[in-house]
Amino acid sequence: MRTEHDLLGDREVPAEAYYGVHTLRAAENFRITGIAISSYPQLINALAAIKQAAALANIELGLLDDSRGQAIVAACKEVRAGKLHEHFLIDAIQGGAGTSTNMNANEVIANRALELLGHAKGDYARLHPNEHVNMSQSTNDVYPTALKIATCRSLRDLAAAMDILRLAFARKADEFKDVLKMGRTQLQDAVPMTLGQEFHTYAVMLGEDQERLHEAALLIQEINMGATAIGTGIASHPAYARIVCKHLIAITGLPLMTAPDLVEATQDCGAFVQVSGVLKRIAVKISKICNDLRLLSSGPRAGFNEINLPAVQAGSSIMPGKVNPVIPEVVNQVAFEVIGNDLTVTMAAEAGQLQLNAFEPVIAHSLFKSVSHLRQACLTLEERCVNGITANRERLLADVENSIGLVTALNPYIGYAAATAVAIEAHATGRGVAELVRERGLLSDEKLAEVLKPENLTRPQSIIAPAGGEDAMRPSLRDRRKDCAMDGLRPLTTKLN
Amino acid sequence: MRTEHDLLGDREVPAEAYYGVHTLRAAENFRITGIAISSYPQLINALAAIKQAAALANIELGLLDDSRGQAIVAACKEVRAGKLHEHFLIDAIQGGAGTSTNMNANEVIANRALELLGHAKGDYARLHPNEHVNMSQSTNDVYPTALKIATCRSLRDLAAAMDILRLAFARKADEFKDVLKMGRTQLQDAVPMTLGQEFHTYAVMLGEDQERLHEAALLIQEINMGATAIGTGIASHPAYARIVCKHLIAITGLPLMTAPDLVEATQDCGAFVQVSGVLKRIAVKISKICNDLRLLSSGPRAGFNEINLPAVQAGSSIMPGKVNPVIPEVVNQVAFEVIGNDLTVTMAAEAGQLQLNAFEPVIAHSLFKSVSHLRQACLTLEERCVNGITANRERLLADVENSIGLVTALNPYIGYAAATAVAIEAHATGRGVAELVRERGLLSDEKLAEVLKPENLTRPQSIIAPAGGEDAMRPSLRDRRKDCAMDGLRPLTTKLN
Amino acid sequence: MRTEHDLLGDREVPAEAYYGVHTLRAAENFRITGIAISSYPQLINALAAIKQAAALANIELGLLDDSRGQAIVAACKEVRAGKLHEHFLIDAIQGGAGTSTNMNANEVIANRALELLGHAKGDYARLHPNEHVNMSQSTNDVYPTALKIATCRSLRDLAAAMDILRLAFARKADEFKDVLKMGRTQLQDAVPMTLGQEFHTYAVMLGEDQERLHEAALLIQEINMGATAIGTGIASHPAYARIVCKHLIAITGLPLMTAPDLVEATQDCGAFVQVSGVLKRIAVKISKICNDLRLLSSGPRAGFNEINLPAVQAGSSIMPGKVNPVIPEVVNQVAFEVIGNDLTVTMAAEAGQLQLNAFEPVIAHSLFKSVSHLRQACLTLEERCVNGITANRERLLADVENSIGLVTALNPYIGYAAATAVAIEAHATGRGVAELVRERGLLSDEKLAEVLKPENLTRPQSIIAPAGGEDAMRPSLRDRRKDCAMDGLRPLTTKLN
Amino acid sequence: MRTEHDLLGDREVPAEAYYGVHTLRAAENFRITGIAISSYPQLINALAAIKQAAALANIELGLLDDSRGQAIVAACKEVRAGKLHEHFLIDAIQGGAGTSTNMNANEVIANRALELLGHAKGDYARLHPNEHVNMSQSTNDVYPTALKIATCRSLRDLAAAMDILRLAFARKADEFKDVLKMGRTQLQDAVPMTLGQEFHTYAVMLGEDQERLHEAALLIQEINMGATAIGTGIASHPAYARIVCKHLIAITGLPLMTAPDLVEATQDCGAFVQVSGVLKRIAVKISKICNDLRLLSSGPRAGFNEINLPAVQAGSSIMPGKVNPVIPEVVNQVAFEVIGNDLTVTMAAEAGQLQLNAFEPVIAHSLFKSVSHLRQACLTLEERCVNGITANRERLLADVENSIGLVTALNPYIGYAAATAVAIEAHATGRGVAELVRERGLLSDEKLAEVLKPENLTRPQSIIAPAGGEDAMRPSLRDRRKDCAMDGLRPLTTKLN
Repeated sequence: MRTEHDLLGDREVPAEAYYGVHTLRAAENFRITGIAISSYPQLINALAAIKQAAALANIELGLLDDSRGQAIVAACKEVRAGKLHEHFLIDAIQGGAGTSTNMNANEVIANRALELLGHAKGDYARLHPNEHVNMSQSTNDVYPTALKIATCRSLRDLAAAMDILRLAFARKADEFKDVLKMGRTQLQDAVPMTLGQEFHTYAVMLGEDQERLHEAALLIQEINMGATAIGTGIASHPAYARIVCKHLIAITGLPLMTAPDLVEATQDCGAFVQVSGVLKRIAVKISKICNDLRLLSSGPRAGFNEINLPAVQAGSSIMPGKVNPVIPEVVNQVAFEVIGNDLTVTMAAEAGQLQLNAFEPVIAHSLFKSVSHLRQACLTLEERCVNGITANRERLLADVENSIGLVTALNPYIGYAAATAVAIEAHATGRGVAELVRERGLLSDEKLAEVLKPENLTRPQSIIAPAGGEDAMRPSLRDRRKDCAMDGLRPLTTKLN
Repeated sequence: MRTEHDLLGDREVPAEAYYGVHTLRAAENFRITGIAISSYPQLINALAAIKQAAALANIELGLLDDSRGQAIVAACKEVRAGKLHEHFLIDAIQGGAGTSTNMNANEVIANRALELLGHAKGDYARLHPNEHVNMSQSTNDVYPTALKIATCRSLRDLAAAMDILRLAFARKADEFKDVLKMGRTQLQDAVPMTLGQEFHTYAVMLGEDQERLHEAALLIQEINMGATAIGTGIASHPAYARIVCKHLIAITGLPLMTAPDLVEATQDCGAFVQVSGVLKRIAVKISKICNDLRLLSSGPRAGFNEINLPAVQAGSSIMPGKVNPVIPEVVNQVAFEVIGNDLTVTMAAEAGQLQLNAFEPVIAHSLFKSVSHLRQACLTLEERCVNGITANRERLLADVENSIGLVTALNPYIGYAAATAVAIEAHATGRGVAELVRERGLLSDEKLAEVLKPENLTRPQSIIAPAGGEDAMRPSLRDRRKDCAMDGLRPLTTKLN
Repeated sequence: MRTEHDLLGDREVPAEAYYGVHTLRAAENFRITGIAISSYPQLINALAAIKQAAALANIELGLLDDSRGQAIVAACKEVRAGKLHEHFLIDAIQGGAGTSTNMNANEVIANRALELLGHAKGDYARLHPNEHVNMSQSTNDVYPTALKIATCRSLRDLAAAMDILRLAFARKADEFKDVLKMGRTQLQDAVPMTLGQEFHTYAVMLGEDQERLHEAALLIQEINMGATAIGTGIASHPAYARIVCKHLIAITGLPLMTAPDLVEATQDCGAFVQVSGVLKRIAVKISKICNDLRLLSSGPRAGFNEINLPAVQAGSSIMPGKVNPVIPEVVNQVAFEVIGNDLTVTMAAEAGQLQLNAFEPVIAHSLFKSVSHLRQACLTLEERCVNGITANRERLLADVENSIGLVTALNPYIGYAAATAVAIEAHATGRGVAELVRERGLLSDEKLAEVLKPENLTRPQSIIAPAGGEDAMRPSLRDRRKDCAMDGLRPLTTKLN
Repeated sequence: MRTEHDLLGDREVPAEAYYGVHTLRAAENFRITGIAISSYPQLINALAAIKQAAALANIELGLLDDSRGQAIVAACKEVRAGKLHEHFLIDAIQGGAGTSTNMNANEVIANRALELLGHAKGDYARLHPNEHVNMSQSTNDVYPTALKIATCRSLRDLAAAMDILRLAFARKADEFKDVLKMGRTQLQDAVPMTLGQEFHTYAVMLGEDQERLHEAALLIQEINMGATAIGTGIASHPAYARIVCKHLIAITGLPLMTAPDLVEATQDCGAFVQVSGVLKRIAVKISKICNDLRLLSSGPRAGFNEINLPAVQAGSSIMPGKVNPVIPEVVNQVAFEVIGNDLTVTMAAEAGQLQLNAFEPVIAHSLFKSVSHLRQACLTLEERCVNGITANRERLLADVENSIGLVTALNPYIGYAAATAVAIEAHATGRGVAELVRERGLLSDEKLAEVLKPENLTRPQSIIAPAGGEDAMRPSLRDRRKDCAMDGLRPLTTKLN
């Protein structure tokens, strides 16, 4: 053990530990989730990148001697290479606006730098966590900057996963482009479309969400370095903000820029709220998609039974042969979690007071979970579900041919009255509209086949008004009403009005 | 016009107005929703009941002379009879922890009492809104007490509406008690049940929610009167809290009691959070029920088509004969609103500081909306939907007979291996399980008919192990596997593993 | 009375009513909020603009004769001029995905057009609500398009109100630019700043939110016209989508465009989720600002007492002279409501199924409330609070001079050790740091005055390392520790560790 | 490696693994959080308790032979003793309504039972995970029952932690019972109270929340065993539900009962929504308490500075001596997380469809996090904050003596007019009310001392109307107004109407 000292007095620290007294106290103070910040490697790497950039800036400004500076830089590089992460042991949910996380980084880097310089760990008189590693910095600019860099990188991973999923839907859209099916509004049979159009929609949704993600990511490229304690830059050099940003860009490869107003940037969590809001939007969309997949594959007998999701595990011991849509189900649950996390972010952001938001750690925790779980959800959905989806083409076609909604497409050719009469007989007898049209000789087989081609049913058509004008084509509503007696179509409640 | 005076100076008030300068200022300050507090008549009546009880208590304690006191009581009775409500014109969302609402009540009651005494409105030297109407009170005990009384009454109305809906589901449960259908888990066909069991579930859910509502309502029967400014009872008589509660019980007929700790009661919104949480729970349940109703009535061709909701209006101009489940849809939307309102209540409650929660007006606004909209939703759902629901009995029975899930019920009689073989043939050929069992001669028609009776399919059965014990009855898994080649049951993704 | 007919049979309609049977049925079906859609005039005007554009497109395509078409156009212009709004009487929360709202518009416009043509209301054989007014349209493209246009206009109003508020904060930032005060982090005294910097932050926050609002508004300029029932454009002319968009741009003056994928656009509510998410972000920020204003004006004696909010009404009858921050309080409550509304929007969007989201009416209701209430909140905050804020300059300056945090600024001039010693004496004795520095002769009065100038305390400073380098300047931590015995600074819990 | 088989074919399983093919597939399918279900030991123990009870019931009913049955019981006991937990490796967020978790339990218990019987792991022909361990059960009754038992136990731990915290507040309430201070409403100085009353409030709040927790816990004592697949009890013996419940009560010691309607219980998540709602309520309260603690300890100079929180770690490297309220801050963050989790639970519950809620795993994950984090938060707050809180008695007393709000207490003794004149002078000069009353000779020193005794300021007082009645005692408002010219008390905005 070695002895370290802080505001509260002396404290034994394990001799081999790279962390120090501040980390130890914080680890004891915050025992909430049991999840250490090391479980977010992007955050640890971002902290090391910042400490490296700050050391280079301090050297450049003549504030830090080269020997200490280069040792700090070397230690930072090791951390960024994934070493020493296990010494970042503060709980993910912590008080203190991230101070403990920053202290943890300062101590680990200082002690590793001390070793590299040939000194013992804890010999802070030679190289000090706060004096040298934290020079020109405050938790209040380091921590949000680290969150932003880590989030930037995580969002790139998420966007890549979304793209993989988007392309899977696009491939299915192509595969199913000729598969005619009934579209539904309000869960009721509407008019025909193709299964390809249905899957294309999912690809388009994801593409739009990727754009929103890109826009939101721009906001978190505005960093806080140079703000120090409250944004006024107290105890920092006037040129420091510019120089540290230059180094941080070089180290991370990200298009960072110093926030235009550092006082505002220090207290504002708006960028995180925006990112979380877009993650919520993605969750809403992807949950809707999974709801649809589960609905379309419901059955196999007493359901829609339009598509088959690949079986990835047995569904039930008690019911032989049952297979469940477990992959969409897990994605739905991730979506619900992300929406809940967004509320946590919202509340934490709203709770900020005066010059700082003390609740950024739970914002970080929530965002990191949302981003990584959404990413895993996208990859899982692509690999274990979407790629293996097959269509029950006969069932789908039969539902279209059997559908009363088909009459909407026949309207321009057989007239609304005849179409309505067909609809009524179809409803009463359970027979198909096409079959009845054939039987009644209303259209030739060729014409009927042409009208019912997917390419004619599923896009706008040039409707040429027959001679005699629109009125001639469409019998008046009053006449139509006599024909169809539509009142009988659906059972009515006796209590109505 | 008459002139009134307050902290800010003189102000003209319309001569005929029962409200005064405080109300006028507040009406000008708060122009947010355009919805006046008069739109919550229960709140206005509760305020008047409190003012009446306070006047009686003050008379009893010798603090208020009989003449003024009786005039106040008379004015309060008029308000409670629904008169003068239009003079309560503060916006529903207002600053000031309800002070303006309380001031509004004081002024209207004072001016009406002045009239009853033969004086001019505004002649506050004779009877003063704050001195006499508000005697022994503070907004900080009056306003939450008024919310509680108003909420109590509104919850009773809601509970009555829930009961009407619950009984409608119970009647349908009875009507459909013999209608066999497939139960579903995870939207996949599972095992048989009755449509009556399905509807009975909805009745049970509502019944449980009524119990929760009753429990939560108990919490809001603890009133704040006697707390005055911060709960210490400053400027009130030691006997006042007890006496005003006695009068308030007599006036309202509610089983009220003084909160055990008035300092706590003054700042705590926990009771409202609890009530709102239960309203959210009701919303979750009723939304789930409506989701089910929409799903079960999906179709009519390309959907579940198990039940028919009564048609209450045309669904679409562009698609002839389309009818949509508009009543469940509107109830779903109310549920979403209630869940959103619960978040508003949560945030407002969390934002309370020190000895008071300044945000009770938005809590009141949110609660009142949730309660009244839920009430209307229940009544609408009962009258315009549930009562008229009919079952497609043939379709439901066919789905059961056609179902592979039926084999679970045959297990104890034909053995798991034979059952599995039947299941496989059923899946491959699309034929029904019962038909195949008959064809294979596995069970006599009588036995099969007996097993497939609803009363045997839809409850636990006495399973008697055949001679030879359990092992004899159930072939080993290994054997079974050879028989069934279940791998072919569902299309597999090639990417698995 | 006149008789109209629909799917459910004959129904009497008041003879003078411009609405018809569909509206009447829906008004009876949906009795939830008591708030009619006419309370959203922007929505009614948008519907009329769409009907007008569609009529012009249908005329241009030869589908609608000129006489009927021009009558429809004339009727639409009247609605857009604010006439006939009272005939839009469906409840704001309604089932049916907006069908009833669309039907309401079709009927009112048809009946007014019939009148303009010299016919009786209800004479639909001559001009029909669905046949002619709704030609080439479906609720499923009309309704979301109307929401988007109405939201676009409302957002412009909101942005204007935000700008007014932003400029008020900017004026105060200028007024207070020389007012030195203590900045705080985690509610603890930190380092000096100016009150101007504090108010400037609020202006910057609002400016950033205006940018986010502008971005989100772009998304809702993608309209749905031409999609008809499910986005495939069934029953519409191939050129219709292009032509109707052209007319709608001309009528509204908005930079609209047809959504790139109409099937996706028909079912996706992502744009509304995005807008609502930005409104939530604005609510979070503005709530934080109001929390700060209430905190900074707390007191007047036992609080921060840094600024004074203008008194706009008396605060309490029971406590003479009490004035409360009612304007920030009402804005906080609007923020809580907006955050709750965002959850409603989120749930409604997630609940969309297959080709349509049936829950758009509650999305519209929630969005319209959020936008208009936020707008009113901004205007109220500006007019009745921010403009009248004054600073307690002496108190603010005294707090800085009295502050221990001031030592951070003195560090580079008197050294960390001396600064720490001063801090300790200040804490122990309650005396001011500046006073002690003067007393100890550590800095000349001139130097001290210079260092404590706002312009030097509140921005980065050129720190020149004294001869001997950094180490000479900064005594080692170990030495410092002996000096300061900081352990005594704060009471410690005996339970630590 | 050993080979196992399921629906998807053969699969190698590590030879030493107690889990089997179903677990392995699920572990591969669900890679979301990286948090295995073993991180919830209460859940694993509850599963083992259920399997043990089921085995005993099946033996009792003659469905399971004694040899296999006793081996299963022995294996379950080992699991409940904390062994084999590491073999429960499914991800906490999983599809399939908990089926994989149940399968995991079946396999681990079966393989351990096989070992105990002297057989090889994987020799399922002798003792089968589904046939024997899962006999008479379905995931759909096992999983929710396990959640309920685990939640019951966790809630007891939480209630115990809340009690520890409650008692700490009660001790402080006693310690501070004579410490007079200013109460505040809307952050503005109101009237005096004791610091003891303030802390007592927190104890009362927690006590009330414990009661709510107890009520909610009753709901989750209704278990699902006997429901099997959908609640109808298919494939279970009529006596099974009763017998398994008896054994489960004996094993767990919990007062469990079979849910009255098992079909309802299978699909309903209302009990979890209720528990989560109460957790949210606790979070709201505890967050409010922490907000207060942070506010009361703000400063040390430019803040309220009423109480001191114990220093538990250094607050800032850049600002020497700064100590932050990190413990309340971490508790606030837990509260925000719990409120977010409640939304996740709400959405998952609402998403249930027909006979089952497939989203229970994310409900479980969210609830377990909320309960355990809240528990840790309570213990942390007690140990590291509340116990060490000290009061700045002089400051608190000075604030009362200095307060204008004190005049409210003097009203009955010196009259409202004199009190108001005192208030005005106090405001204008900054002097104390008591001092001015002494100076003016309005009350004798003895009387003043008596009135200002905490016990007289902080509770209702017997107010005896002076001779001449109320009117004599209280000058008319009009007179008072002349005296006080209260308009000057606060700066007014020039824009006011």
